Amino acid sequence: MSGNRIEHIVKELGELIARRNNAAILERIGDLHPADIAEVVDRLPLGEAVYVIRLLPDETAADVVAELDDNKREDILKRLSSDEISDIVEELETDEAADLIADLPEEQKQEVITGIEDTEHAKDIVDLLRYDEDTAGGLMGKELVQVNENWNVLRAVSEMRRQAENVGRVHTIYVVDDQGRLKGRLSLKRLLTTSTKTPIKEVYNPDIHSVKVTDPADEVARLMKKYDLFVVPVVDELGHLVGQITLDDVVDYIQEEAEKDFQMAVGLTDEVEPDDSIWSMMKARLPWLVVALLGGFLSVTVLNGFSNALNKYAVLFFFTPLIAATAGNVGVQSSAIVVQSLAKGTLQGSLWKRLLKEISLSLLNGLVLAAILLVVGKVFLGHILHGFNMEMALTVSLALVSVIIIASMVGTFVPLMLHRLGIDPAVATGPFITTSNDIFGLFIFFTIAKMILKF
Amino acid sequence: MSGNRIEHIVKELGELIARRNNAAILERIGDLHPADIAEVVDRLPLGEAVYVIRLLPDETAADVVAELDDNKREDILKRLSSDEISDIVEELETDEAADLIADLPEEQKQEVITGIEDTEHAKDIVDLLRYDEDTAGGLMGKELVQVNENWNVLRAVSEMRRQAENVGRVHTIYVVDDQGRLKGRLSLKRLLTTSTKTPIKEVYNPDIHSVKVTDPADEVARLMKKYDLFVVPVVDELGHLVGQITLDDVVDYIQEEAEKDFQMAVGLTDEVEPDDSIWSMMKARLPWLVVALLGGFLSVTVLNGFSNALNKYAVLFFFTPLIAATAGNVGVQSSAIVVQSLAKGTLQGSLWKRLLKEISLSLLNGLVLAAILLVVGKVFLGHILHGFNMEMALTVSLALVSVIIIASMVGTFVPLMLHRLGIDPAVATGPFITTSNDIFGLFIFFTIAKMILKF
Repeated sequence: MSGNRIEHIVKELGELIARRNNAAILERIGDLHPADIAEVVDRLPLGEAVYVIRLLPDETAADVVAELDDNKREDILKRLSSDEISDIVEELETDEAADLIADLPEEQKQEVITGIEDTEHAKDIVDLLRYDEDTAGGLMGKELVQVNENWNVLRAVSEMRRQAENVGRVHTIYVVDDQGRLKGRLSLKRLLTTSTKTPIKEVYNPDIHSVKVTDPADEVARLMKKYDLFVVPVVDELGHLVGQITLDDVVDYIQEEAEKDFQMAVGLTDEVEPDDSIWSMMKARLPWLVVALLGGFLSVTVLNGFSNALNKYAVLFFFTPLIAATAGNVGVQSSAIVVQSLAKGTLQGSLWKRLLKEISLSLLNGLVLAAILLVVGKVFLGHILHGFNMEMALTVSLALVSVIIIASMVGTFVPLMLHRLGIDPAVATGPFITTSNDIFGLFIFFTIAKMILKF
Repeated sequence: MSGNRIEHIVKELGELIARRNNAAILERIGDLHPADIAEVVDRLPLGEAVYVIRLLPDETAADVVAELDDNKREDILKRLSSDEISDIVEELETDEAADLIADLPEEQKQEVITGIEDTEHAKDIVDLLRYDEDTAGGLMGKELVQVNENWNVLRAVSEMRRQAENVGRVHTIYVVDDQGRLKGRLSLKRLLTTSTKTPIKEVYNPDIHSVKVTDPADEVARLMKKYDLFVVPVVDELGHLVGQITLDDVVDYIQEEAEKDFQMAVGLTDEVEPDDSIWSMMKARLPWLVVALLGGFLSVTVLNGFSNALNKYAVLFFFTPLIAATAGNVGVQSSAIVVQSLAKGTLQGSLWKRLLKEISLSLLNGLVLAAILLVVGKVFLGHILHGFNMEMALTVSLALVSVIIIASMVGTFVPLMLHRLGIDPAVATGPFITTSNDIFGLFIFFTIAKMILKF
């Protein structure tokens, strides 16, 4: 729906809710797709949003809740009773139900689970709650269609029909043995052209990609992308079929991960939208600013340590933002390349080879930048800066090249080290690397200047 | 496949290729999934990679080429004749074929298209080449299964069977009218439980999401994500069904866009991997460094303009990296939030309201940072910095708050302006905004200091 249409419905609903005209409310939004209703509810004030959710039939309410913005969903659930949440969970697919319950306060989780009437559904959800959200187990749902290899086609077809009723969209029919171990998949075409008495064992296709329940989510995403899979079965340590992951779940995961990397790179600690409260904005933005400020104090003391240059070579201090910015930019570039290839699993070769390559590259980039600096220094800066002669220009250029080389080595080394320590290397693409390279860069710059100019 | 296994096969292949042992080569990789062969070919030296591609049967070669790394594919295609490329294109799905041909040199495109024997396939590809790659037309493929609303079930089923042979995976059966206009979709379940003489008109489901061929790719991605669609039909301006887009194509698109935003934020002009040549690395990294350097010259002249502060307030110059870094960080944060919500289409409300919110937020963040600065200044900096008294500390704090407010306004305003001018606002998250905020920040800092300290 267009933004205007949503705004329009939001306004209409506000009036209908004020008049408690429930029939008109349901008539207004009842025919919309749940994802559209969710967009409307996202824009309603909290009280009205809760009112609408309570008014909707359980199944629609569940579909809407599943599509809501995370923050809005959290706020709405806080206003609902455990019984009301159980009714919603009852109608959700197992993976969505588990995600929803995982976000509830500890003491409420048990109440909500106990309130689920379909015990099979409740069992599946409890099972899913065991898995880390960044693993295949955390992405999978329990709904799937499976047949036993020892059944004949007739029985398989009737079981498939029965199971399919509980599954939103059937992508693949899995074949398992008596122990529930995944054996392969069934081709619908093959099934329809085979005698009803043929055992499944003789017609199934054993060629199937699967993932382990403990596999990291990013590996699942890579596998599904690589082999263009729309769905992949999940097996436990003993090969039992325990769930399946569909591509739409992986799309959400890929997008969230990409957003996290982006946030880190731009210095935000949390996902924020322009419409979020000032308070959440502050929470997302202040932390890295404080880190950068503390780093800034260190750079103040570094510069103070070279304050005896102020008498004869004060002009050096005009170059500090230029040096710091270059060091920061080079460091972020280097670390970003390492972080992305760590995420993609494409990083190969030894650390020393990598550092050697970074040094050669930085030397080349540094020489180009130094050449520009010398030319600009000669034809332009020399005329306006008091005391900026060729010796100074050469000093700044040499320092610039050194700063670039060191910054690129720091940018390469730090994310690799973080990764080895089990810390998300993406931390190293944000203000953290910029700030530390600022300080390093300034220190190197003045140390070299001091050696050459002897102040 | 694991990295080790790939390395192992790459090594074996190297020896087999040296001995021109074609039978052994095919035996070694013939049974692998094309995506796995592509991983191996990606690692082979160019000459050997071309050798392997030429050796593979056309169909496998096509699947492998479709999965190759972009740079490797480009290099390999340069070594192949137009006839050889035509043979590969012949076996590719239309969307992949069009993407491949679009990247060829202008003069070769015609040769390759003329060399395609299946004229229907060639016509479809030429049709796809008309569309911008960032639109629904650029994402879609022509392969799909469609039936006429005026056919009966019997005819529809036999036509479906025929058409399905040319389509990799059938997600949906589309229903069109005599003019080829999209009317709806067919439920397989419904089809199987209906008399063979029933006209399709009476059994199809008219409830179907579709996109227009000119719709921007990011809107298609948003729609498919929102409604959890695995496939969406594409219609032209008159409603004729012209193709379909599957979720796997959209996954690639989403990931590429996310990578582009990330690259922009970290100051890279191109996608690079650690294993790329030093030359491509330099091409990706140098441009933004040059921009930042030129910005650095401006900051040098800004500082030079306040050089009369050197006599009495030299300590101000120690704060320049701190001020510049804070301005840069705040600016990037603000612009990143705007850029992301522009991309998601969630930006609402007037510019003035947004700026007002940014100002309030920046005031809050600024006050916290200023408080930290005052405390650190009092208990720590005052002792080590010569001439850093309370007046100076207050000056720096006041300047810091102003810099933060201005930087956040620039960061909010610039991407919105770029967006209005039709320029990708993500440009404003990179070194561009950092550099301009550095300069602004320093200018404001010294201007305020000058007003208070009167130098």
